[in-house]
Amino acid sequence: MNKLLFMASVLMIFFGCKADESMAEKEKTQKTNNFAIIIHGGAGTILKKNMSNEKEGEYKAKLEEAVKVGHKILKNGGTSQEAVMRTIQIMEASPLFNAGKGAVFTHEETNELDASFMDGKTLNAGAVAGVTNVKSPIELAIKIMTDSDHVMLSGRGASIFAEEKGLEIVNPSYFYTERRFKSLQRIKDREKTELDHDDKKAAFYDTDIKNSKFGTVGCVALDKNGNIAAGTSTGGMTNKRWGRIGDAPIIGSGTYANNKTCGVSSTGWGEYFIRSQVAYDISAQMEYQQKTLKQATKDVIQNKLTKLGGTGGVVALDKNGNMSFEFNTAGMYRASMNDKDALIVKIYKE
Amino acid sequence: MNKLLFMASVLMIFFGCKADESMAEKEKTQKTNNFAIIIHGGAGTILKKNMSNEKEGEYKAKLEEAVKVGHKILKNGGTSQEAVMRTIQIMEASPLFNAGKGAVFTHEETNELDASFMDGKTLNAGAVAGVTNVKSPIELAIKIMTDSDHVMLSGRGASIFAEEKGLEIVNPSYFYTERRFKSLQRIKDREKTELDHDDKKAAFYDTDIKNSKFGTVGCVALDKNGNIAAGTSTGGMTNKRWGRIGDAPIIGSGTYANNKTCGVSSTGWGEYFIRSQVAYDISAQMEYQQKTLKQATKDVIQNKLTKLGGTGGVVALDKNGNMSFEFNTAGMYRASMNDKDALIVKIYKE
Repeated sequence: MNKLLFMASVLMIFFGCKADESMAEKEKTQKTNNFAIIIHGGAGTILKKNMSNEKEGEYKAKLEEAVKVGHKILKNGGTSQEAVMRTIQIMEASPLFNAGKGAVFTHEETNELDASFMDGKTLNAGAVAGVTNVKSPIELAIKIMTDSDHVMLSGRGASIFAEEKGLEIVNPSYFYTERRFKSLQRIKDREKTELDHDDKKAAFYDTDIKNSKFGTVGCVALDKNGNIAAGTSTGGMTNKRWGRIGDAPIIGSGTYANNKTCGVSSTGWGEYFIRSQVAYDISAQMEYQQKTLKQATKDVIQNKLTKLGGTGGVVALDKNGNMSFEFNTAGMYRASMNDKDALIVKIYKE
Repeated sequence: MNKLLFMASVLMIFFGCKADESMAEKEKTQKTNNFAIIIHGGAGTILKKNMSNEKEGEYKAKLEEAVKVGHKILKNGGTSQEAVMRTIQIMEASPLFNAGKGAVFTHEETNELDASFMDGKTLNAGAVAGVTNVKSPIELAIKIMTDSDHVMLSGRGASIFAEEKGLEIVNPSYFYTERRFKSLQRIKDREKTELDHDDKKAAFYDTDIKNSKFGTVGCVALDKNGNIAAGTSTGGMTNKRWGRIGDAPIIGSGTYANNKTCGVSSTGWGEYFIRSQVAYDISAQMEYQQKTLKQATKDVIQNKLTKLGGTGGVVALDKNGNMSFEFNTAGMYRASMNDKDALIVKIYKE
């Protein structure tokens, strides 16, 4: 038995060495013009049959616009931080996605926004939870990283910080959209008839509610200097109560970046993403188990998260510019571009 | 060169197999009466020369009282969840520690409390940030885990949830202690004269401020059923502003538990603990690199956290009841007890 184990181990070592060599090879071949960007606009039960051609076109056009903004910055030698911020700001300014302008409503009919950002070079990070009047939560997350001693600020205090730093403040009504407000009313109506069945919530019956419940936007970029940055921004969960904080502003769950390994932005049922430590776990598997980005994202989403009962996905890229879309839902709004200008824009599972 | 690498690898495999075998051995010998508990009351520049005998006695007596409460629960066959909650509640009710009754003051002269809890069997978790009127934040964190769909609640909303669930609500003045209020005034006075030197904050000059800035309490327990639970509770950072959230309520940073690996509670400079993913990283190194608890806690605190510039420590225990105190500060209030009733109560580095 011990002999067999030993033989197996020697074989494993051979493969191990091979993997190490090929990684070293990759590092050698990494050029300074190797850059890449990958984004998501939320994952969920997004099915072709529920989507008009017009709506599909709108989503695809906005995803393309957003990813191209970041790509241009990277191509011109800009930083991954700038690319992530500007790209996310395009999606925050659109009513299509559950972030910024298109944020969902809380139980109290307000919009409370969360965001986070991480810099893979310094492992510095910034995050904000529950702001109601800052136009660009991702910009605020970055400002918290660069201009405060803190990683995470919240609520009214975070708004005061944003004002002090000169960020654009808007009237909370800026975040009102009829579509999101109607989603909230639909969930509340459903809840009234469901009080006795709280094991099966509205979201389990109504795919449109499910979608709007778990939307997020996110972006990961690798710049020509080899620096990875990742960011995530969201309005959270429709009908959220009690100052609920999901995974989007949690470093290690919603967002993680490390030049040694990868950058990750998550979208999905936040509670499960926190419990599964999704974003950092992908990095840890790459660092400690020498997994490729694809192997790590697949294990964390399709195996670990799925077993726990969580739904959603991630976009991720590694230090060599390899990219991965990984989700266990019917769809994920997503796009990417590499240093060859190759553009991918997709919605459904393929 | 390749040959050398191969030889080295074969040697490593031998050691690897040996480690695997000894782990399998350990699992076989794990008894159902194997239980353990480990606690901390904060880490910092705690030096014998700054501590009166009387004060030292008070701290040690309270640590002993707290750890014995949890130990008794475990010995009688109670759950690790119950042991962690009751043990932390002893420290929350004491003005000695920066949690509950002894919480530090924010810049606005209020007390805003954070806590988190994780169950290593289900990987379920609960956390709360910024509550001002809930007597036991650790109890609220557990209630959020057991009685809501959420992992993390915050602010006024979290207080409303606590009230709805019948938790003990206190007047915010309950958290007033003269000692903590004076600490805040001292920091504020210092800040006035330090506006031009913001690279060196008050905490860097005044060890008492440094201590009171980064206090926390935490507990990890293993019960007779092999279930690990971990919890952390704090008043955060003296003079914190803008709704700052530290690592204590962040699952994966301040608290983590997984029956497969270990349970961890952190204390220290929260921002660095978030950026380093301290609590989950210890579990990841054990799971993915087959490190022992001691090896993993040592690498994360003495190597990774220290290199990043962070200060603080952790208490941790693994599924076999091995325990580890690990900190890079002059001291950490700490105690532990195992299934042989062996008690350790310590303050300074030894």
